[in-house]
Amino acid sequence: MEVPKKLVCSVASCAEDALAGLVACNPGLQLLRGHRVALRSDLDALRGRVALLSGGGSGHEPAHAGYIGKGMLSGVVAGAIFTSPAVGSILAAIRAVTEAGAVGTLLIVKNYTGDRLNFGLALERARAEGADVRMVVVGDDCAFASQKKAGRRGLCGTVLVHKVAGAMAEAGASLDEIVTRVSAVTKAMGTLGLSLSPCSVPGSKPTFQLASDEMELGLGIHGEAGVRRMKVMPADEAVETMLAHMTDPSNASHLPLSPGASVVLVVNNLGGLSCLELSIVAGVAVRSLERRGVCIARALVGSFMTALEMAGISLTLLLVDEELLRLIDAETTAMAWPNVVTGPATSQRPEVAAPKEAMETAKQVPSTGPGMERAQKVLARVCSTLLGLQDKLNELDRAAGDGDCGHTHARAARGGCWGTPSKDTVPPICSLLGPHSCPQSRHGGRPAGPQEGQSPSGRLRVPVGIAPALSLHPTAIQEWMRAQPLPPSPAHLFSALADLLLDKMGGSSGVLYGLFLTAAAHPLHNRSDLPAWADAVDAGIEAMQRYGGAAPGDRTMLDALCAAAQALRALRSPGADLLTVLASAVEQSAEAAAESTRHMEAGAGRASYISSAQLLQPDPGAVAAAAVLRAVLEGLQG
Amino acid sequence: MEVPKKLVCSVASCAEDALAGLVACNPGLQLLRGHRVALRSDLDALRGRVALLSGGGSGHEPAHAGYIGKGMLSGVVAGAIFTSPAVGSILAAIRAVTEAGAVGTLLIVKNYTGDRLNFGLALERARAEGADVRMVVVGDDCAFASQKKAGRRGLCGTVLVHKVAGAMAEAGASLDEIVTRVSAVTKAMGTLGLSLSPCSVPGSKPTFQLASDEMELGLGIHGEAGVRRMKVMPADEAVETMLAHMTDPSNASHLPLSPGASVVLVVNNLGGLSCLELSIVAGVAVRSLERRGVCIARALVGSFMTALEMAGISLTLLLVDEELLRLIDAETTAMAWPNVVTGPATSQRPEVAAPKEAMETAKQVPSTGPGMERAQKVLARVCSTLLGLQDKLNELDRAAGDGDCGHTHARAARGGCWGTPSKDTVPPICSLLGPHSCPQSRHGGRPAGPQEGQSPSGRLRVPVGIAPALSLHPTAIQEWMRAQPLPPSPAHLFSALADLLLDKMGGSSGVLYGLFLTAAAHPLHNRSDLPAWADAVDAGIEAMQRYGGAAPGDRTMLDALCAAAQALRALRSPGADLLTVLASAVEQSAEAAAESTRHMEAGAGRASYISSAQLLQPDPGAVAAAAVLRAVLEGLQG
Repeated sequence: MEVPKKLVCSVASCAEDALAGLVACNPGLQLLRGHRVALRSDLDALRGRVALLSGGGSGHEPAHAGYIGKGMLSGVVAGAIFTSPAVGSILAAIRAVTEAGAVGTLLIVKNYTGDRLNFGLALERARAEGADVRMVVVGDDCAFASQKKAGRRGLCGTVLVHKVAGAMAEAGASLDEIVTRVSAVTKAMGTLGLSLSPCSVPGSKPTFQLASDEMELGLGIHGEAGVRRMKVMPADEAVETMLAHMTDPSNASHLPLSPGASVVLVVNNLGGLSCLELSIVAGVAVRSLERRGVCIARALVGSFMTALEMAGISLTLLLVDEELLRLIDAETTAMAWPNVVTGPATSQRPEVAAPKEAMETAKQVPSTGPGMERAQKVLARVCSTLLGLQDKLNELDRAAGDGDCGHTHARAARGGCWGTPSKDTVPPICSLLGPHSCPQSRHGGRPAGPQEGQSPSGRLRVPVGIAPALSLHPTAIQEWMRAQPLPPSPAHLFSALADLLLDKMGGSSGVLYGLFLTAAAHPLHNRSDLPAWADAVDAGIEAMQRYGGAAPGDRTMLDALCAAAQALRALRSPGADLLTVLASAVEQSAEAAAESTRHMEAGAGRASYISSAQLLQPDPGAVAAAAVLRAVLEGLQG
Repeated sequence: MEVPKKLVCSVASCAEDALAGLVACNPGLQLLRGHRVALRSDLDALRGRVALLSGGGSGHEPAHAGYIGKGMLSGVVAGAIFTSPAVGSILAAIRAVTEAGAVGTLLIVKNYTGDRLNFGLALERARAEGADVRMVVVGDDCAFASQKKAGRRGLCGTVLVHKVAGAMAEAGASLDEIVTRVSAVTKAMGTLGLSLSPCSVPGSKPTFQLASDEMELGLGIHGEAGVRRMKVMPADEAVETMLAHMTDPSNASHLPLSPGASVVLVVNNLGGLSCLELSIVAGVAVRSLERRGVCIARALVGSFMTALEMAGISLTLLLVDEELLRLIDAETTAMAWPNVVTGPATSQRPEVAAPKEAMETAKQVPSTGPGMERAQKVLARVCSTLLGLQDKLNELDRAAGDGDCGHTHARAARGGCWGTPSKDTVPPICSLLGPHSCPQSRHGGRPAGPQEGQSPSGRLRVPVGIAPALSLHPTAIQEWMRAQPLPPSPAHLFSALADLLLDKMGGSSGVLYGLFLTAAAHPLHNRSDLPAWADAVDAGIEAMQRYGGAAPGDRTMLDALCAAAQALRALRSPGADLLTVLASAVEQSAEAAAESTRHMEAGAGRASYISSAQLLQPDPGAVAAAAVLRAVLEGLQG
């Protein structure tokens, strides 16, 4: 077992450096000279009020110094990692708040012998000096089924004690009132931990090990042994196990929880758990409590009381009434107290209905005139062209990408299940996302940075994959045309085709063609003259470039399309003839440009990771785009 | 390489469950039916205002749904883990805020091709429906020294864009004004990551590996390759390296940072780093920026934009002026925005001076009367007794503890360097903390829970060690008496002795005797009659029990002390004779009780982990306490 690496300045200075960092970043704090003690910078605010001090070993950040502020703690004494603070420092903190004019001081201490003794001695010394000091020992651990002489360990519930006491002190409550209230609070709460990993004090090995399929229930915030090791289980079962243990009447340290009870729930990250998992656990805990008939008056989710980098959680439940809730809700400037929206947690929050599409394409009366006939011919031609090109495009793509460009384009015409292409081997979904696609990184290797040597797999450029709506009913343009009349106008037709390609073609190609069609539809809304068609092509290309990030010369479909667009500008001249201009755009511009990609270095897409010396064929995306344009021409001609 | 364990319900439902958990716990949120979209629950508040939508792949929690609320985002579209959200869901979110009456919608998108394309297409579709939608693409990564066609990656700086745009939208700014401002903001910021570990998508292996002594600079929030692997270095050097890279003018993606500049600093936990390390890094970053002459107008420290459980950080710098700062400071109800105290970060915060001791023992005129002479005799006798018992106590302790009980008590008399005891082998500090001590867990095995079989080392009970003030000048009672006259009253003498024992004796024994003396001093403040002495003993024992947690019958020093105290109550009877009562207390009570611990099961302290069948000798702590009492008696007699 190795000593795990840590991002620290030195092992010896960890506790000091962490406290200094916190104070440096929080203008509401100040250090007490010569001690590892942080205090509110507005100590004057304590005059005539009760001061609240807490602390303990470091390694539980943001506890406790993160809870210093108006409405929470007045100050904190930090020990070395997992080690009680020195009596002298605790005493110095008490003297400082007493000198600032506090009418009394409450020490809030987690139930560990070292903390009890050191805070206790400081208290006795301060009392001997005439200060009015009291101590509340927080024990909220529900782990141990048999009564322990040492009592319940102090865990995350301590933070709720900080909050309740802080709100009362801020409101001017007396030391007696605060002690009475928080003593009741500590009895009305319970906490239980669950972890997937140990933690390690800087410079030391982890104090225990868990097998790769094990989790441990009920362990403490220093890695102390828990009550049970279990096989890793789904989060919902794990949380159910925790809540059952915490509330089991046969468990001497349980929290009595009856249906109808109202609780504050704290879902605490013990350190190294991902925030994703924490949110999942929070949702599961809410549902599990709801099933018990419990009202979750507030749910706090975050890192409140950690055990260094331990990957685990603790759940804390505090039984509350309205009055206690007001104290939990009271304002505080403490940095680590979350921005809680006051209101209960519930898995039954009403959902808002998704509005229907604003532009009501579907309800338009379908067109049946000669325009529609032409459109049908064009689309049929595009489909047959793409299907006929499937093998050629795949072959071109094998040299530069992953060999599925033909499949992708064929899918636009005829559909096809993404997971099981009709030919060749069965690639994972991500390899079907087309030649210029951004596969889901979860299926591939690590996306490459500029130093490709560092990347275990230099194939992928873009880490964020595209999530198309995966079709269960593989139909595409051909079947769609058979199933219903075409939309009544070019603009509507383009929008409908965009939907279809996004849904059926998939990958970046689908999104890019979808972008083209959507943007191109705009200039065609109320016009269908030839200049409008030129505008449409320009708008489509502009959108592809804007969002896709490639430019002409990057060896992509844009090379063919941009060349064609250049030629199609002639449509804006008075008296231009569509077929003549289009023929020239296809034959002299698009196809030539597609062919010329043979000599280009790839500037975008997957091919950009292959040296230009190896790219001897034209780009399949450009070839496909030119072929689509030719199909449009032939459809209009024929 | 194994698939790391995770606390999730199912691999497939992670993104959905995490969003549902967040919404369940935050009454300010609601879901959009049929989509992975979270929206403000007070959508009415958008009427007449600009709506702000963001999103992207999941796995970056609390980004982005944690930033929904008044003053930040209106809604968020969440993709699967590390995968762009579906176009249809983005479009549905735009429609929802538009229907709620928003006068325009800004999409805030991190610069990844998938996100750009999907948000871009949704934008075009929404525009085609007549909505006023704009998009700002955030790229803040400073990793790559050469210009990338794809531009800078979008990282943690995106959260600052949420904040700035959110404050403007809340204040009623127009879509144009917001776009202009945040476009400037994205150019005025930079982010760089540094990690000690990879992360892994649930159900998958980590996408890369780092050696146990390596860290990687400049990697992305999905584990994409960075710019440099380095040997693990101290946090201050690592941060210096990061800031140097981020601001290096020869780096094409650098942030120009001149002395005198004012910045907002974000110290972001990439997921699995401990909060301790994060605070250390924050402090170091502040100092490093100060050395560059930069003013850190605000420092935000926490988990803002994570990469699942990656153990690493990112630093974000945003150049700010007063106006921008007002937007950063503006109020928000977003749950993941921290409770920031408005004020600059600085490592030069003034420290508050520690007040001097309130009770001015030192200035008391020393006593020279017969009382002092008696006290000196008693103390001398106690010291010689403890020194004479050293070997015997060590031997008793070898059977039940760690064999140093004699050393500990001898240290009270004669001092002695903790690290190098005069006899036997050289134990670590923690083994010197006495027989009933709570050693620092960092030196020992794992503290035992009730199932001792689970504990690799069942020796230690209490995880929080005691941090005594380690003495550099090993002097104790004997030398102290030689060096100065004794304090003038029993109360002052007891207080001074408490200090001395805490400092020189160490361990739990030192704290416990310190507690006894401190509490016992109280009844002796203005009285020195015999009943006051009985009260003093009771008060001392009460304090030991209250803070130490042991009781008579637990096989500790309390057994001897409590028995004596019982007998000493006779001092309260009128006409009681001190020596008679004390002799009886010592001989018939304390020594008998110490002897009877031989038959007790240990209920506290280290011996409680040893079965009573193995404990055949009396408890060394009890024997020592009885011996001290006898020494007091003999001192008074002699």
